[in-house]
Amino acid sequence: MVRMDEGMPFLLKYENVAWYDAGMVRILDRRVFPTEVRFVECGTYQEVAQAIADMVTQSAGPYTAVGMGMALAAFQVRGEAKEKQIAFLKQAAYDLAHSRPTTANRYGQITFRAAELAEKALEEGRDPIEAIVESTVESLNRRYSSMQIVGDELCRLIPAGGSILTQCFGETIIGTVIRAAKKQGKDFRVFCAETRPYLQGARLTSSCFAEMGFDTTVLTDNMIAWAMQEGKIGLFTSAADTIARDGHIANKIGSFQIAILAKHFGIPYYVTGIPDKDKHTRRDIVIEMRDPEQVLRYRGIPNCLPQVKAVYPSFDVVPPHLISGVVTDKGVYVPYLLDRYFDSDVKAFY
Amino acid sequence: MVRMDEGMPFLLKYENVAWYDAGMVRILDRRVFPTEVRFVECGTYQEVAQAIADMVTQSAGPYTAVGMGMALAAFQVRGEAKEKQIAFLKQAAYDLAHSRPTTANRYGQITFRAAELAEKALEEGRDPIEAIVESTVESLNRRYSSMQIVGDELCRLIPAGGSILTQCFGETIIGTVIRAAKKQGKDFRVFCAETRPYLQGARLTSSCFAEMGFDTTVLTDNMIAWAMQEGKIGLFTSAADTIARDGHIANKIGSFQIAILAKHFGIPYYVTGIPDKDKHTRRDIVIEMRDPEQVLRYRGIPNCLPQVKAVYPSFDVVPPHLISGVVTDKGVYVPYLLDRYFDSDVKAFY
Repeated sequence: MVRMDEGMPFLLKYENVAWYDAGMVRILDRRVFPTEVRFVECGTYQEVAQAIADMVTQSAGPYTAVGMGMALAAFQVRGEAKEKQIAFLKQAAYDLAHSRPTTANRYGQITFRAAELAEKALEEGRDPIEAIVESTVESLNRRYSSMQIVGDELCRLIPAGGSILTQCFGETIIGTVIRAAKKQGKDFRVFCAETRPYLQGARLTSSCFAEMGFDTTVLTDNMIAWAMQEGKIGLFTSAADTIARDGHIANKIGSFQIAILAKHFGIPYYVTGIPDKDKHTRRDIVIEMRDPEQVLRYRGIPNCLPQVKAVYPSFDVVPPHLISGVVTDKGVYVPYLLDRYFDSDVKAFY
Repeated sequence: MVRMDEGMPFLLKYENVAWYDAGMVRILDRRVFPTEVRFVECGTYQEVAQAIADMVTQSAGPYTAVGMGMALAAFQVRGEAKEKQIAFLKQAAYDLAHSRPTTANRYGQITFRAAELAEKALEEGRDPIEAIVESTVESLNRRYSSMQIVGDELCRLIPAGGSILTQCFGETIIGTVIRAAKKQGKDFRVFCAETRPYLQGARLTSSCFAEMGFDTTVLTDNMIAWAMQEGKIGLFTSAADTIARDGHIANKIGSFQIAILAKHFGIPYYVTGIPDKDKHTRRDIVIEMRDPEQVLRYRGIPNCLPQVKAVYPSFDVVPPHLISGVVTDKGVYVPYLLDRYFDSDVKAFY
């Protein structure tokens, strides 16, 4: 089995993200990484869905986890009548896709494809589990392949010896831009916004860049304007959980305000990723509201009196006027013209 | 001894801020409040200065602590020759004033006054410790008295049933605006920016408002633009560690970016406090850089790999064009015209 995770930091190795083996899916617990390296073991696909809902893994991690969760579902229903197996896998595909609402369309592309392949394998008398694991790895490889084009292009946009600000943890783009920088022999400094409440920037993004030898500095989420004014930030970049065709994007809470600050200071903001064909405008974007308790405490330590409330919108929406360009596998698009991505299969750089 | 801390939340009671008694200064440890209610006990004024440097107390807490620290210095040197006592107290006044650089001028006003009063008491055969404690309480009362005018005025600026966003912990203004609201029979909702890395907003400001019955919600520092766009914030207000005469103010890191966001969304930003006579322009403002280790950890738990760096500017500077008005004890000033505060003793509302 060819794998595209060669030369990647620890966090991005397929078997560290999520892996099916012998009736079990092991998922690296990103809630405690890098303070602790601990895996959550799931014995059912429902536990995989719960782990995704609980943010054991996040960013692109669920793309691997839902695929491996489908293999686990096939294991759970093995030996049953073919029709029962197929029905169970379809249910699993739906449940895993909906473990988080904002990205249900993306997860569904992986899970329903897996269900189809399992059905085909059953028809042909092959092992559906093996078929799903293979298809998951192929799907990961396809994603790495597309995102390597994005990573190469993003890397070209970063001035040598310059500096970038990241928000949250862009998983695949982090891996591919690092690989591009190594290939292009380009070095740059990295500032990671901490990204409360989950601290993706402080814990995950900084770990990947630092492990691969980049000069890496963490900023709390309230230091962004200060760092921009001090001239520390040359370019702001983030991935996106949704890229709508009208140029609105949804990404981790805080992306919106960093985009406003970047515009205030005249710093370009490049969004990376593949536009979502089924999301036409910002009205198609669903913002997941998570448990406010995660804002009120951290790793079990409460910060507030019991009568204090909180809100926890997972994402916010950045409008096109705050985005300098959307870096896709077909080139860099003016956000207002993003719909052109779907006009043709010809790669076009705008 | 008259005290102006009647009807104040727990955190603002003088003896909970810092108190001298029988050769000991007890300081509420704000680093762990409200998760734990714990006091740090200092047996020397040097320990008081260290406690301030370590942020056991902060905001206006050090105004009390340096005064009580002077009483402790007088206790340390009791029974010595008068000249030796006076010299020791002058040294203590200097050391305590410089426990943090940005506010050394404000702390010094309290400590050098205490040294003078102790000298006078020694000349007159009175107890210098008692003289200093009394002068510290009088100084606190004077501050509460001035800041009550500020609190009354700020309260008038908040629409009834409206909502405010706070940054960090404004100590005296929090107490006096709450008292004003109770007196004016006005209710409003409070959103507290969490204020990483020390979490003053989540832990201290929210505790005071919630204890006094206000509807209080904590936002992580990256949720500000989201909350403003959702229409949740009617007015942004903060205190300031320095208010320069040219309208630049220094306040907790993050104030600058919230001010930019407030202007973007058309939300007024009112700074509260008394201008610093000796700070003419932003060039007179010293920004304290603190230990980056506090950014790399969250309440003692490390977040990052060892090779990851951080920066920790304690404060940032907000320019006058981002400030709607400076609410002082003489009225609300246009920030560009703040120098007029010193033109006359007549209270004037602009």
